Amino acid sequence: MKIAVDAMGGDFAPEKIVKGAAKAARRFGCEIVLVGDEEKIKRILTKENRQNDKQIQIVNTTQIIQMNEHPAEAVRSKKDASVVVATRLVKEGECDAVLSAGSTGAAVTAAQLILRRIKGIARPTIATPIPTREGVTLLLDSGANVDSKPEHLVQSAVMGSIYSELVFGVRKPRVGLLNIGEEDTKGNEQAQLTYPLLRDNPSINFTGNAEGRDIPKGDFDVVVCDGFVGNVVLKFAEGLAKVLFRMVKDAIKNGGLLARLGALLIVPPLRKLGKRLDVSEYGGAPLLGVNGCVIISHGSSNEKAICNAIGVANEFVKNNVLQRISDTLAKEEVAEQ
Amino acid sequence: MKIAVDAMGGDFAPEKIVKGAAKAARRFGCEIVLVGDEEKIKRILTKENRQNDKQIQIVNTTQIIQMNEHPAEAVRSKKDASVVVATRLVKEGECDAVLSAGSTGAAVTAAQLILRRIKGIARPTIATPIPTREGVTLLLDSGANVDSKPEHLVQSAVMGSIYSELVFGVRKPRVGLLNIGEEDTKGNEQAQLTYPLLRDNPSINFTGNAEGRDIPKGDFDVVVCDGFVGNVVLKFAEGLAKVLFRMVKDAIKNGGLLARLGALLIVPPLRKLGKRLDVSEYGGAPLLGVNGCVIISHGSSNEKAICNAIGVANEFVKNNVLQRISDTLAKEEVAEQ
Repeated sequence: MKIAVDAMGGDFAPEKIVKGAAKAARRFGCEIVLVGDEEKIKRILTKENRQNDKQIQIVNTTQIIQMNEHPAEAVRSKKDASVVVATRLVKEGECDAVLSAGSTGAAVTAAQLILRRIKGIARPTIATPIPTREGVTLLLDSGANVDSKPEHLVQSAVMGSIYSELVFGVRKPRVGLLNIGEEDTKGNEQAQLTYPLLRDNPSINFTGNAEGRDIPKGDFDVVVCDGFVGNVVLKFAEGLAKVLFRMVKDAIKNGGLLARLGALLIVPPLRKLGKRLDVSEYGGAPLLGVNGCVIISHGSSNEKAICNAIGVANEFVKNNVLQRISDTLAKEEVAEQ
Repeated sequence: MKIAVDAMGGDFAPEKIVKGAAKAARRFGCEIVLVGDEEKIKRILTKENRQNDKQIQIVNTTQIIQMNEHPAEAVRSKKDASVVVATRLVKEGECDAVLSAGSTGAAVTAAQLILRRIKGIARPTIATPIPTREGVTLLLDSGANVDSKPEHLVQSAVMGSIYSELVFGVRKPRVGLLNIGEEDTKGNEQAQLTYPLLRDNPSINFTGNAEGRDIPKGDFDVVVCDGFVGNVVLKFAEGLAKVLFRMVKDAIKNGGLLARLGALLIVPPLRKLGKRLDVSEYGGAPLLGVNGCVIISHGSSNEKAICNAIGVANEFVKNNVLQRISDTLAKEEVAEQ
């Protein structure tokens, strides 16, 4: 197993990326190819005493795609950008997977242009795991495409189900369509057109519309929606969790000595819960629908998140997710003929 | 001030609705017209010892619109439904406002058909207040219309700004467009077409795109979006808050005696915070864009929520929100000619 890591993408790149990748090499026993500014990467590895680690290689690149650049233009013009070169390593069979915490648009575009879409897939889709009351719900698309067509949502459902089954071990994942009501007549045009397609698709276990509140409750294993909606919901959740945490902290701080003592006493049980809800535990979201394993990490990823994201890449490859997606799509195509 | 209350709408109707309304009559000194099953309403009022209260009247109706009915069909066919009759009381000048916690679709449709839209408004919009870190953000549309056109979002922005200013006392409310990135080129087709219209509108203080995470942070006073997206986000927040609360409670319960003691100690400061975050404190969301004050309450509204929603109706009427919306739209029309 060999994972290409875009060492220059992310708010804390290259330091946290390199450190997280080095950690993952040990934990998962995989090889890592760090793609980016060789000098900077070497300096960090030396600090970590990993400069002679045979599991870690470096591929030097001279360009970086910034967050505010137009993804397609940047990927086309910056041939030596870290994310472009890292993706190419997968295309050339040098690596089994690529990971980036940089511009999501750039990573998605590089994957589409270099790895190409799987036959039968019109749009790749980002599948983000959301911790719920009892487990994890996969939300897709969470930002690869906006203005999705109904058939894109159906493909998301098929790929998300396969991923949920192979990687999370869910048998017959319950698939929901994100909508504003339970009834099949509810929703905007997109949702109304998508509903019957999901209902009639034999490859998935469609269990109806999912309202916003059903996601955290964990009533569905896979929830499909347009990339615009998915992205808004995810970022909202992120902001809400942060603000709530801060508000509780402030309230306790201003609540006097007893409140502060009380907070200390509840820290141990809450720590375990916090760990389960911590998104960096999940590390990264796979981009499904391209010919290769591409893991997208949050821009604010720390060491732990990067390490765990490499774990996600490992699971993806080990479980043959790609093969299973291609096989299922081929079967659907035969059935349609 | 006289408020028509749909006594039969909501999960806890008519009991909690009647009790909440009776409470509001005292607290706000307004008159209440309870619309619904007279016998049932009377029984509740008697239990509350308010059967002879001159501030409270009853208008008997024989029909109810259920949550799963098609709104337009139901409003047209059930002429004696509580929400229809209550809305008609506003149309006829009998009441200053109408409040319903029943089917949102039915309340919106009744308002459109009976009260009609304000001149210049293509679609009415629900403005839901969301508690944020430091105050309140108004999210609209939160479910009146799906598949909104850019001009609908602009009208939402204009009406939301007026409401924020008049009712929440915000000077020059900061208006944001809910989107998946900060840059003006980001988003789906709807967002990209809406951005320049908001930027160039002289009646509002447009401050750019709002990402999902910016809502809880409180960086905007008014955030506009499609009703599909708004509804999903609101219900998601509701579900997330509930599940988080339950998870924390479970963790503490299973954390042993010390954790339980700790929880007791932090209750006082958290109670104050909980009150600020409690949606029933806000009670109801106004439907903006029709010729009358229409307040939509959550289906699960309790006594407190209904009482506070009547407070919202009071503020709406006292502050002449309708007049100001009409005036602003008339001015915009003149400017365009």
